[in-house]
Amino acid sequence: MKQVIMVRSDLGMSKGKIAAQVAHASVMAAFEAYFKHREWFEEWWRSGQKKIVVKLEGEEELVKRYMEAVSQGLPASIVRDAGLTELPPGTVTAAAIGPAPDERVDKLTGDLRLL
Amino acid sequence: MKQVIMVRSDLGMSKGKIAAQVAHASVMAAFEAYFKHREWFEEWWRSGQKKIVVKLEGEEELVKRYMEAVSQGLPASIVRDAGLTELPPGTVTAAAIGPAPDERVDKLTGDLRLL
Repeated sequence: MKQVIMVRSDLGMSKGKIAAQVAHASVMAAFEAYFKHREWFEEWWRSGQKKIVVKLEGEEELVKRYMEAVSQGLPASIVRDAGLTELPPGTVTAAAIGPAPDERVDKLTGDLRLL
Repeated sequence: MKQVIMVRSDLGMSKGKIAAQVAHASVMAAFEAYFKHREWFEEWWRSGQKKIVVKLEGEEELVKRYMEAVSQGLPASIVRDAGLTELPPGTVTAAAIGPAPDERVDKLTGDLRLL
């Protein structure tokens, strides 16, 4: 089991901003798994909660992968920034897929590079 | 309600490593709040899941603040890295306090600077 968190590298976000966006995405998808895929969640939790942070460019690419995960019934989340600090309101910054079986997450994210 | 995530700035971690450690801490403390402080959790969730990422130096300082939070009955988590990539095994990297009322979290973290 793994969770992959995708973050946009084209927005010029600071380290702290990136970390907060990744945490938002991670928490929301983890709770979705807890409620809808309890077995995946518990196996993931027991085995150390594997999280992989990867990067991509552009809102379109991020939304496309998120929508594919949703359409395949995987736990997934997407983060829209409120725009109070560094970004225009409504900017899509990050998305998480999983916790879910490795191969199902890899099919949607395996080509992306580590942040 | 807020959650503050403290991350060590003295370890030379990469952006992606920092983001993953912050997400580990955030998820664990969020689930603790869900199970032990459901009212705090729900208010935090409804109001946008405020997360603040701050920095500090050294294991001692991080562990001290985590232990204070635990002793005050606040949801809190601390992350020990498995040491598979950038760090020696067992290195303490990050800790989260909350979701909890702003003033109770601020008392333990309000002097720390944003990452």
